[in-house]
Amino acid sequence: MKIAAIIGSSRADGNTQQLTELALKGIDYTPIILKEKQVVPIDDLRHAAGGFHPVSDDYETVIDTVLEHDILIFATPVYWYGMSGLMKNFVDRWSQSLRDDRFEFKKEMSQKTAYVITCGGDQPRIKALPLILQFQYIFDFMGVSFAGYIIGTANAPSDILKDERALAEARQWNEKFLNKQK
Amino acid sequence: MKIAAIIGSSRADGNTQQLTELALKGIDYTPIILKEKQVVPIDDLRHAAGGFHPVSDDYETVIDTVLEHDILIFATPVYWYGMSGLMKNFVDRWSQSLRDDRFEFKKEMSQKTAYVITCGGDQPRIKALPLILQFQYIFDFMGVSFAGYIIGTANAPSDILKDERALAEARQWNEKFLNKQK
Amino acid sequence: MKIAAIIGSSRADGNTQQLTELALKGIDYTPIILKEKQVVPIDDLRHAAGGFHPVSDDYETVIDTVLEHDILIFATPVYWYGMSGLMKNFVDRWSQSLRDDRFEFKKEMSQKTAYVITCGGDQPRIKALPLILQFQYIFDFMGVSFAGYIIGTANAPSDILKDERALAEARQWNEKFLNKQK
Amino acid sequence: MKIAAIIGSSRADGNTQQLTELALKGIDYTPIILKEKQVVPIDDLRHAAGGFHPVSDDYETVIDTVLEHDILIFATPVYWYGMSGLMKNFVDRWSQSLRDDRFEFKKEMSQKTAYVITCGGDQPRIKALPLILQFQYIFDFMGVSFAGYIIGTANAPSDILKDERALAEARQWNEKFLNKQK
Repeated sequence: MKIAAIIGSSRADGNTQQLTELALKGIDYTPIILKEKQVVPIDDLRHAAGGFHPVSDDYETVIDTVLEHDILIFATPVYWYGMSGLMKNFVDRWSQSLRDDRFEFKKEMSQKTAYVITCGGDQPRIKALPLILQFQYIFDFMGVSFAGYIIGTANAPSDILKDERALAEARQWNEKFLNKQK
Repeated sequence: MKIAAIIGSSRADGNTQQLTELALKGIDYTPIILKEKQVVPIDDLRHAAGGFHPVSDDYETVIDTVLEHDILIFATPVYWYGMSGLMKNFVDRWSQSLRDDRFEFKKEMSQKTAYVITCGGDQPRIKALPLILQFQYIFDFMGVSFAGYIIGTANAPSDILKDERALAEARQWNEKFLNKQK
Repeated sequence: MKIAAIIGSSRADGNTQQLTELALKGIDYTPIILKEKQVVPIDDLRHAAGGFHPVSDDYETVIDTVLEHDILIFATPVYWYGMSGLMKNFVDRWSQSLRDDRFEFKKEMSQKTAYVITCGGDQPRIKALPLILQFQYIFDFMGVSFAGYIIGTANAPSDILKDERALAEARQWNEKFLNKQK
Repeated sequence: MKIAAIIGSSRADGNTQQLTELALKGIDYTPIILKEKQVVPIDDLRHAAGGFHPVSDDYETVIDTVLEHDILIFATPVYWYGMSGLMKNFVDRWSQSLRDDRFEFKKEMSQKTAYVITCGGDQPRIKALPLILQFQYIFDFMGVSFAGYIIGTANAPSDILKDERALAEARQWNEKFLNKQK
C-alpha cells in the first residue's frame, strides 16, 4: 500500500501542504512537490502526424513515480476556484501519457485510489465544489476510485490549524492510512 | 468597444479557436495566443516579506494588452474537465496583479465584460459545467460582468463545424458584436 | 418514435411551456401537465415490512403514459434554482416504481431518451446548472440517454419570446424531431 | 438564539433525522416535520390579476414558526440527487410569502442563519454537491447566511451511525450550538 502525495502548491509549507502532512502523520509516503519540478504545458499533438514528441522536462520522472504508488493524494490550494496551474499542467500532460506506447497509462491508473485535499480562503466549502466535481470527472475518465476529499478553509499561513472540521477529517484519514500500512 | 480574445489552446487553429473566430468574424479584435507567450506559474509570495518580485516573462505585456480592452473572450479547450493549464497559469498570476501598486487591477477589470468559449469531446454540455461555474466565481470576485458562454462539442480537428447549436450561438454573438462596433 | 412532454409548471401557458411548444411545433406528442394531475409526495416505505402500498392518486396513470413513449421532454420552470415541487414529487415517486413487480421500470426507462427544457429569471444560464447536473445524475441512474437541454431566460409572461438563443435552440430541436417523425 | 429544524424526510426517524438529532442533542429546538404538515404545491399566481390567494393548508403556520427562529436547519434526504419533494414544495411557496403584504419575508429571513443536513446512498459527497449549490443560491437570494452543511452517506435505516466523518461533524456542530444556547 504505497502512498504518494502530489503537492500542487506554489508556496512552500502552505495550508494545503500542512493539512496533507497532518493526514499523513506517521505514514510512509512519497511527497511529489510539483513546484520543485519542471512540467511544461502540454503541446497538444494528439492530431498531428507523428503524435507527441518526447519533452525534456521532469514530467516523465514524476509520472513514473506516481505509477509506483497505490494511493494518490492530490493536494492543491484552491486558486481562482480551481486547482493550481502547476497541478493543471501536470494533469494536462496525462493526454500525452495516454498515447505513450511504452506503458498502459489508463489501465495502470485505474488500479489506484485517489484522495483530494484542497484549501481556500473564499468560502471553499461552496466555491471549491466545481473543483471537486472536476476531479470526479477526471478520476471517472481514468477509472480511478475517488475515495474522499477534504476542503479546508484557510487564507493566511497556518490558518488551517484553526479549521476544526478539516483537522478532524485529516485525523480520520490518518487513522485509516495507519491501519492500511500496518 | 475594444475586444480581445484570450486563447488558451495548446494546439494552433483548434476547435476552440475556430469557434472563436466565427464569433468574431468581421470584427476588429486583438487575439492573445497564450501558447505563443511565456507565462510561468505563479510563485505565491502573497504572505512573504517584500511580496511579489518582478518576473521576467510575458505576463505583464499580456495583462497590459488585456487591460486596454473592454470585452474579453476567454477561449479555452476543455482539458481534463477544466480550463487549459496555459489559461490557468495566466489567471493564477492575477493574484500578483491584485497586489501590484502600479495599477488598480480589480477596479479596471470590474469595468469589463467577459465571455467564455470552450470546446470539449466528452459530453462538454454536462461535464464543462463545473468550468462555467468556476469562471462565474472568478468573474464575480473581480466584478467582471459574465455576459455569456458557448460550449462546443468537438474532438478531432474541425469537428466544431458540425455542432449546429454552437455555430448558431457563435453567429448570434457575431451579430451582437458587429452591432456594438458599428 | 413517440414523444411525451412532462410539464412541471405551476402556471398555465408559462414560459417553459411556450418554449416546449415551440420545440414541438408540428410534432405529434403527448403533453402531460403535472399541475392537472394529483401526485402526492412519496411515502418512503422502501425499508418498511410489506414495502410500498398502492396510492390512490394519478401517479400510476401518469407513469403508464410516460412508459408508452420513447422520447421524454422534462419541462420545468427554474423554481428556487431547481425543478418545481410538482416535478420533484413526480420523480420522487419513481422510487416506488423501482420496487413495483408489475413492470421493469428501470429497464423500460433505460430505453428512452430524455431532454430538459427549463426557464428561469435569475441568471439561469449559470444558476440552473446544478439543476442540469441533477438531471444528469437522475438519467445516469436510470440508464436514460440525456440528449440535450435548453435553458431559457424569462421572468414575466412570454419573456421567452425575446430570448433569441433559446428560440434558436428550440427551432433546431424542432427540425430534429420533425425528421424523426417523418 | 432559537433553533428550528425543518425536516423534509418522507420516512419517520430516517438517517437524515437521526443525524439532525445528533447535531441537536441537548439543544432546545423546534422540530418542524414537513411530512406531518400539508403543504400543497404552489399555484403560481405571480403574474395573475389579484395575485396569490390564501391557501387553506399548513404552510402559513409552518412559515410563522420558521420566522420565530434565528437558526434554521434544513434537513432533507438526498432524493433523486436533490431535496425531497416535501422540502421543495415548502420552499416553492416562499414565492408566495415574498408577495405577502402582511410581513417582510425577505428582510426577516435575511437575519437568519441556515445549515443543511442531507443523507444519501449513492455517492452523496459528490452527487449531492449540486443540491448544496442550489441551497447556496436559495440562501443568497434571501440574504440568509449559509453557515455549513453535512453530507452523510446512508441508505438502509441507521446506516448513518457508521459514517464516522458525518458523526464527527454533527458532534462539532453540537458543541457550537450548545455554546450558543449557554
